[in-house]
Amino acid sequence: MGALTTRLLVKARAEPDGLALETRALPPPGATDVVLAIKRAAICGTDLHIYRWNDWAARTYRMPAALGHEFVAEVVATGEAVTRLKQGQLVTVETHIPCGRCDQCRMNRRHTCLDMQLFGRLGRGCFGDYTVVPEAALRPVPEGIPLEHACIMEPLGISVRAVMEANVAAETLLVSGCGPVGLFAIAAARALGAARIVASDVSEERLRIARAVGADTTIDPRSGPLPSAIPGGADVAIETSGVVGAIADSLAAVRPGGQVLMLGLPDAPVPIDITRHVVLREVAVRGLYGRLIDETWLQLERLLLAKALNLAPILTHTFPLAEYDRAFALAASGAAGKVSLVP
Amino acid sequence: MGALTTRLLVKARAEPDGLALETRALPPPGATDVVLAIKRAAICGTDLHIYRWNDWAARTYRMPAALGHEFVAEVVATGEAVTRLKQGQLVTVETHIPCGRCDQCRMNRRHTCLDMQLFGRLGRGCFGDYTVVPEAALRPVPEGIPLEHACIMEPLGISVRAVMEANVAAETLLVSGCGPVGLFAIAAARALGAARIVASDVSEERLRIARAVGADTTIDPRSGPLPSAIPGGADVAIETSGVVGAIADSLAAVRPGGQVLMLGLPDAPVPIDITRHVVLREVAVRGLYGRLIDETWLQLERLLLAKALNLAPILTHTFPLAEYDRAFALAASGAAGKVSLVP
Amino acid sequence: MGALTTRLLVKARAEPDGLALETRALPPPGATDVVLAIKRAAICGTDLHIYRWNDWAARTYRMPAALGHEFVAEVVATGEAVTRLKQGQLVTVETHIPCGRCDQCRMNRRHTCLDMQLFGRLGRGCFGDYTVVPEAALRPVPEGIPLEHACIMEPLGISVRAVMEANVAAETLLVSGCGPVGLFAIAAARALGAARIVASDVSEERLRIARAVGADTTIDPRSGPLPSAIPGGADVAIETSGVVGAIADSLAAVRPGGQVLMLGLPDAPVPIDITRHVVLREVAVRGLYGRLIDETWLQLERLLLAKALNLAPILTHTFPLAEYDRAFALAASGAAGKVSLVP
Amino acid sequence: MGALTTRLLVKARAEPDGLALETRALPPPGATDVVLAIKRAAICGTDLHIYRWNDWAARTYRMPAALGHEFVAEVVATGEAVTRLKQGQLVTVETHIPCGRCDQCRMNRRHTCLDMQLFGRLGRGCFGDYTVVPEAALRPVPEGIPLEHACIMEPLGISVRAVMEANVAAETLLVSGCGPVGLFAIAAARALGAARIVASDVSEERLRIARAVGADTTIDPRSGPLPSAIPGGADVAIETSGVVGAIADSLAAVRPGGQVLMLGLPDAPVPIDITRHVVLREVAVRGLYGRLIDETWLQLERLLLAKALNLAPILTHTFPLAEYDRAFALAASGAAGKVSLVP
Repeated sequence: MGALTTRLLVKARAEPDGLALETRALPPPGATDVVLAIKRAAICGTDLHIYRWNDWAARTYRMPAALGHEFVAEVVATGEAVTRLKQGQLVTVETHIPCGRCDQCRMNRRHTCLDMQLFGRLGRGCFGDYTVVPEAALRPVPEGIPLEHACIMEPLGISVRAVMEANVAAETLLVSGCGPVGLFAIAAARALGAARIVASDVSEERLRIARAVGADTTIDPRSGPLPSAIPGGADVAIETSGVVGAIADSLAAVRPGGQVLMLGLPDAPVPIDITRHVVLREVAVRGLYGRLIDETWLQLERLLLAKALNLAPILTHTFPLAEYDRAFALAASGAAGKVSLVP
Repeated sequence: MGALTTRLLVKARAEPDGLALETRALPPPGATDVVLAIKRAAICGTDLHIYRWNDWAARTYRMPAALGHEFVAEVVATGEAVTRLKQGQLVTVETHIPCGRCDQCRMNRRHTCLDMQLFGRLGRGCFGDYTVVPEAALRPVPEGIPLEHACIMEPLGISVRAVMEANVAAETLLVSGCGPVGLFAIAAARALGAARIVASDVSEERLRIARAVGADTTIDPRSGPLPSAIPGGADVAIETSGVVGAIADSLAAVRPGGQVLMLGLPDAPVPIDITRHVVLREVAVRGLYGRLIDETWLQLERLLLAKALNLAPILTHTFPLAEYDRAFALAASGAAGKVSLVP
Repeated sequence: MGALTTRLLVKARAEPDGLALETRALPPPGATDVVLAIKRAAICGTDLHIYRWNDWAARTYRMPAALGHEFVAEVVATGEAVTRLKQGQLVTVETHIPCGRCDQCRMNRRHTCLDMQLFGRLGRGCFGDYTVVPEAALRPVPEGIPLEHACIMEPLGISVRAVMEANVAAETLLVSGCGPVGLFAIAAARALGAARIVASDVSEERLRIARAVGADTTIDPRSGPLPSAIPGGADVAIETSGVVGAIADSLAAVRPGGQVLMLGLPDAPVPIDITRHVVLREVAVRGLYGRLIDETWLQLERLLLAKALNLAPILTHTFPLAEYDRAFALAASGAAGKVSLVP
Repeated sequence: MGALTTRLLVKARAEPDGLALETRALPPPGATDVVLAIKRAAICGTDLHIYRWNDWAARTYRMPAALGHEFVAEVVATGEAVTRLKQGQLVTVETHIPCGRCDQCRMNRRHTCLDMQLFGRLGRGCFGDYTVVPEAALRPVPEGIPLEHACIMEPLGISVRAVMEANVAAETLLVSGCGPVGLFAIAAARALGAARIVASDVSEERLRIARAVGADTTIDPRSGPLPSAIPGGADVAIETSGVVGAIADSLAAVRPGGQVLMLGLPDAPVPIDITRHVVLREVAVRGLYGRLIDETWLQLERLLLAKALNLAPILTHTFPLAEYDRAFALAASGAAGKVSLVP
């Protein structure tokens, strides 16, 4: 195989927006790398942080920074030490590559490996024609899962994991924040037997999608106190917004002995009324980071093959790669579900 | 309130069939008893054992024996020590009345109380116009649950508990035996997120109902080896038949680390290949008896109020009480789902 | 039985200290009450709040307020509806009396009953010769458990429950705060298989007791950063102090995926770095309130009968009731373990 | 490094005993292999099956068969693809080498991998001077663990895992069968907080060791019915003998809701009274095979470093390699604990 060139969307300037679609030679794959032809890629919240160039992004990335890590692609070529994948195979990506040796890995908590490598930080990107990915990050896509689902298995996996760990069967669930992760959680909770789902967000468009995928009740928290909208309290809250007020609402909204699963990332420490909520009412506050490797992937495959999840209303927009500017502007506006790009 | 008379269906003769509809004076309620006007009652497997007069029934009951313990009724009067129920309230029955003092009760395993009282053994019955029940056995029926569902909350509770404990979300489930308990389990597993449901039975009619409530695949085990019909193996099997061959099939059909929940009651010890299945493949064999008191009741209420369960195809037949002979003959034939009687 | 008079220790004046030992006629027992002769009683942290007359105490109690709810006593007489206890029996107290009807009770979370009655708020007290207690609050003391252990089963139960729920077998445990609840937790964790126990407190005397009951390492957090004293991190922290800095230390000291059990009651909301600790490191923050009813009591009985817990170094002081002033001053000073009074 | 020769104990003749100590050239290590100098090796039950030449051994092994897989050794040389180990390091062996790709591996059940490789079946052996082992089977021995403990981490791991999964804290445990696995389980249960340990065996010598490592009560089941010796029933039984009568006793001896962990391997299907024990009494029957990879290894390291386990009374005999005949005869007689050989 000769050298490939590829278009690649990068953050070119250290300022809001500042994206550019460059053409580059694809770096030669190492022994454990795989060359991929991208079929479809989705915009993640992380990409939006880089797009908006917030403090975290400015601290974390150097220009030009390749964006994107949610995609589905076809294997074009494999390094000589690649053993599991072959040309023509369809794959998606688990962005976390654990070391396999640390105590977290040894206790089967590979998703919080102490020596983690992140595909998203390798500077390879996925908004382009081709990319190069370590084999360890790749997951074969089983036949029968369509490209638009394979493309979003990673963010969907966060939500499915949260709903699995929340164990929502016959329970009342509050989903706080209806971005893609919150919406995916609603779809999963509906499929996995939640008795009642309450969703909150400040965007009417997102609440509309929430209802479309299975929320029984939707609330704009600016319209009145959220906890009083859930008589008896929620058994579980899945907090995806990272907003201080939404976290306080979630804590107050769950019943004694309930749990709040934290997925959102607040910018600053959050004051928690430990005495009232955590001790006297025994509300558990648990965080979730990423997917279980590989239990969550197995579950995703099964649920997608069983067509158990109503995802269509969440996958609102697809653009050609060349229209990346429209795609990012829309995704950043909050007036969309998941936005994808096709090369 | 003056003395009430009631029709009451009893086993009158120690032989197959042998039922009779007698008219009796209702016994006066004790201080903790409640007088109930029966709205609807369902035939349980236990009632069929008595109807057929098998060895267990002959050992356990003395004539005339009142049948029935699955019903919904209205409170007509209450003993002076009854504190939670009042006239006009709709109630159903948890047939197990735990002592509250033994070690099983103290460890919140009231359903296997060491000093259990059984409503079904008190000789009161429920196929009639009125009956008298200890308050401790009664559960108020929340508004919004229709009579035909309230009537079968007890057997449904066994199935819902099994599915909850099996934790079927995103899993492959085998339901072995499609009598009412198996069919209820299929409906519950479909609602609670099983990725794939395989059902087995020897009755084509029951397999038809199994498909109607959500089984993806149905198998008559006489037509070929059941385990080979589940590639990759089931994660969980719920065995409701008590048939030796079906138990062996269930053990062989689950994957390493899977579990077989035993609900059926085999007549004799069952040879189990402990080495092959239980040790080397780490299949867990767990039995379930009754419902958790009262966690399962809470879950039932929530699932029924949420209309999460597709029960209609299982509730196949309703007869007037006077036609009890047709009802019992049909239920015993295996060619029906759940059969109910209305006074 | 004629009317009994009893000495009774009360908060007589709304100011620090302000205790008085009064003589009163014992109120006549109701139908479900039991008259008890107190054998031994222990000073609880709640009693110290009342003694010091902090804001919470001033908001919660009206004068004269009877103190105390940790004790062992002998049944002297029983109300006519008492069914389980009889004269001469030794009993101790579970201060929480659940309603048995609310959703928390129905889901076997009686310790967070929504309509809880508290013996400690009934104004009966236990620092005296006799008291009157509802039967539902009493637990028979099995033969073989000595009075000094029976007397502190309630606070010990909090610690044993925390250690049981933390599941410390083969784990590294941080106990933050070495008052009686922390010290009991250390003794329980040593008995239940913790691989390593680290204890922190600012009192050298308490750290000495911590070592005596099984702490491997003790730390005064003023002497240097606590997290760095636990290489690899703790698997679990049990936080008993309620001090903001100790809570922050506990969060930082546990490994990814570890848990912080909150038993201490901070006075104000506590800022928690949700992003860093709870989400990215998946540390679970869980509160515990009281004992499981009655699982924890069963476990306490078993551990005490097996003489599995090294409690003697914690039970540092016993005074005659008349010397209550010395007893309370010592307990409030922090220079003691558990302090008891004998009538 | 030049070619090494090694003594190696093999099964030379297809008959009981039939062992021979041969001298061989060590096979050259492959790229992922490690050459080891053996420090100490222990005789496993599997070795005794081969020694006695039972049906299973005759079906499974071809002559000459190298024996042994429990040992501690020092790294002498490493294949070029070995990345984690280096010369001079002390290692022990996890005999199961999972594939890492099958569904069992993906759901973190590597110990029941569907495509498992077994060191014990590679024909390499460990009763000799040197051996060659795939890196994936090796576990570094942390400094501070003595050779005699490092040598038996594998069989100890089965017992520690069983006790961890049984969750014996504050519980009554029956250990059925006091061979090394049963004895290790008693030592672990004592360290991990069992309230009461009952041990059964037919060898008085083994019962003596059982008491030495922490059994409260020991029973020869030939002397009377075992279940009646445990009033209230055991919470858990760990069955290590594989004897039909002992399995029946274990089932009958546990309380309702208890569990029987099966570690022993019966020769034939075992009749189980499913109705009485598994369904009506809700006893769970669970098998355990091997150790969790690598959670159990982490726990072993922690418990051994903490010196939490009283193992000395179990490690009864050590022989020089040349006296292998005495060692095997003693181990096969049942009159010993664990028997080891030193080259």
